[in-house]
Amino acid sequence: MLGNFTYSNPTRLHFGPDALEALAGELAHYGKKVQLIYGGGSIKKNGIYDQVVAILKDAGKEIYEDAGVMPNPTVEKLNEGCRIARENHVDLLLAVGGGSCCDYAKGVAASAWCQEDPWEKYYVRMEEVDNPILPVGCVLTMVGTGSEMNGGSVITNHKTKLKIGRVFGEELFPKFSILNPEYTYTLPKYQMVAGIYDIMNHITEQYFSGDDDCTSDYLMEGLMRSLIHSSREAVENPRNYEARSNLMWIATWALNTLVAKGKATDWMVHMIGQSVGAYTDATHGMTLSAVSLPYYRHILPYGVHQFKKFAVNVWAVRPEGKSDQEIGLEGLAAMEAWMKEIGLVMHLADLGVTEDMLEGIAQGSFVMDSGYKVLEHQEILDILKQSM
Amino acid sequence: MLGNFTYSNPTRLHFGPDALEALAGELAHYGKKVQLIYGGGSIKKNGIYDQVVAILKDAGKEIYEDAGVMPNPTVEKLNEGCRIARENHVDLLLAVGGGSCCDYAKGVAASAWCQEDPWEKYYVRMEEVDNPILPVGCVLTMVGTGSEMNGGSVITNHKTKLKIGRVFGEELFPKFSILNPEYTYTLPKYQMVAGIYDIMNHITEQYFSGDDDCTSDYLMEGLMRSLIHSSREAVENPRNYEARSNLMWIATWALNTLVAKGKATDWMVHMIGQSVGAYTDATHGMTLSAVSLPYYRHILPYGVHQFKKFAVNVWAVRPEGKSDQEIGLEGLAAMEAWMKEIGLVMHLADLGVTEDMLEGIAQGSFVMDSGYKVLEHQEILDILKQSM
Repeated sequence: MLGNFTYSNPTRLHFGPDALEALAGELAHYGKKVQLIYGGGSIKKNGIYDQVVAILKDAGKEIYEDAGVMPNPTVEKLNEGCRIARENHVDLLLAVGGGSCCDYAKGVAASAWCQEDPWEKYYVRMEEVDNPILPVGCVLTMVGTGSEMNGGSVITNHKTKLKIGRVFGEELFPKFSILNPEYTYTLPKYQMVAGIYDIMNHITEQYFSGDDDCTSDYLMEGLMRSLIHSSREAVENPRNYEARSNLMWIATWALNTLVAKGKATDWMVHMIGQSVGAYTDATHGMTLSAVSLPYYRHILPYGVHQFKKFAVNVWAVRPEGKSDQEIGLEGLAAMEAWMKEIGLVMHLADLGVTEDMLEGIAQGSFVMDSGYKVLEHQEILDILKQSM
Repeated sequence: MLGNFTYSNPTRLHFGPDALEALAGELAHYGKKVQLIYGGGSIKKNGIYDQVVAILKDAGKEIYEDAGVMPNPTVEKLNEGCRIARENHVDLLLAVGGGSCCDYAKGVAASAWCQEDPWEKYYVRMEEVDNPILPVGCVLTMVGTGSEMNGGSVITNHKTKLKIGRVFGEELFPKFSILNPEYTYTLPKYQMVAGIYDIMNHITEQYFSGDDDCTSDYLMEGLMRSLIHSSREAVENPRNYEARSNLMWIATWALNTLVAKGKATDWMVHMIGQSVGAYTDATHGMTLSAVSLPYYRHILPYGVHQFKKFAVNVWAVRPEGKSDQEIGLEGLAAMEAWMKEIGLVMHLADLGVTEDMLEGIAQGSFVMDSGYKVLEHQEILDILKQSM
């Protein structure tokens, strides 16, 4: 476990088929005015909206609707949410939806009482939040981002073609999250597998960095093995509770700060994927799946010991009589076969990316410096070309 | 992930070689009067006592000494600690030591303002805590119990020969714990390996139960693999920071409620081991190591699928051409070889247990009902005889 660090995660998780029953108890901690945040209205079709509204009304809450949060929440929407919160002096932001709704809620929580332009202050300049913060609660209906138990908040600015992921401190973590795996049964397969790859990539981003022997890597190997197993079960039968509940739990623990403790992390795939997202508005998990393999094959020579561990411990590659490089590549080949098997997008061209966008996408990719290789602009461009 | 559950862990962990620097910031949250809890005085020899006292004085705190916490804290000591807390109206209990000090501090935290006999109310009758609770902080100097991030508190009553482990709710978890792996360098090897087996057994107690596919089991397999690797490194070189820091982190996560979520757990080895402890005052981890293998070999036929997973995923047993039973037994044989290699006590007779005690130890062993086999009295007696 490298260095000095603090671990503290104040989010209370209520998990299981009856998790929503805990909402009333959580609401009792907050004032009357609740900003109800949701997306395109799927929660109205599946009945979750009606259940949540009934609980809010029973608790005597006033509801301020904040609907229409898009898959990649925009600056314009963020400003609208802040206006709703401010004008009504809301006491709680309740996000009902997937990671986008929860990311957005945290953005509003930080920004509603910000005296400057919050996009510039909190996303571009990444300043500390120094204004009053609103509490966030979450009823999760999609699995993948881990936003339900962390400070992550990704906002997109289409004008400047920037999709920026801000990681806020624990004061902006959701106070509580309601996790009912059954809510994810009706998600279309495309969204489900994109979420599964988002989880996988959250783990590999944290796994592929560092040269030491660290318990966090062993935890991640366990999470990846469980993810691979349950993803196959869920693709086979989307109503398999065992698989869907494991996926929901893995998603949360893959990105709630635990597995990053005491180690270096990378995040370069997310940097490239988010830049693709800013150009195409493509589903986040699919932008990651399209660029992952060219990236990992490119950096493998610089961290071959870790790619070997990945192959042997996660994919059960037999190492006998092979070089470390061969073992590592066999692990990536096993990952590629799994990705195709569950139906991930493997090419940027399938996400609407055209050759003329590549230069801009490469320019818009923040370069991280803690992976196995700090990428030059030309290397990012090469990876993007190989991802087409 | 089985059933409905809530996960919430409010303990803030400060980890690393400079972790003690965080103490001053934590102290600022509490009043002036600090009850300083420690054991036999080893912290005076290694300088930790002086460092902590200097920080307390710099923070303007009044110190109320509560020394002499024994390895298995007694009811008499608990009552003494409650008196100190009550008479001085202390604001914070600061435990500096191993799991015993931290367990004891939680006992005092729950009991200081209890109007009845706390042993009877909170340990024997296991009632909810309904009096004011004192906050606990911890500076950890030994690794194993996990007490630094949970609600566990084991107290021993020598008169009634009962050693009872109470698990309090999150309101009794330490508010903060300071974890500096370097503090564990000077621990005698006997105590170190006893702590290592305590960790291993915390994991196996939670692992060997249930028939479902659960992410928590995969996390535990990762923790066990890391534990086995780092235990060998630490026995080889006690000042190996990488190994000692991994061990410290694994100990915390093995018993802070995470890996029990969504699954059945057992705890029968602890029930027998604690009964041994009440008769002999033997080191806790050694009581567990002495009874584990006879117990696990006894229950293997009832949970053979899980013993097979344990063998293959934790001990890298090759399954080809073997029955599940053979694979499971090979896993236990691998565990036995590791236990002997690191120097654990393998026989109750080596802990001062005599044949005439066995009936009483068996009588004093609470029988758990969620492992693979609910034990009859005669089965416990047989396991104890095989453990001699």
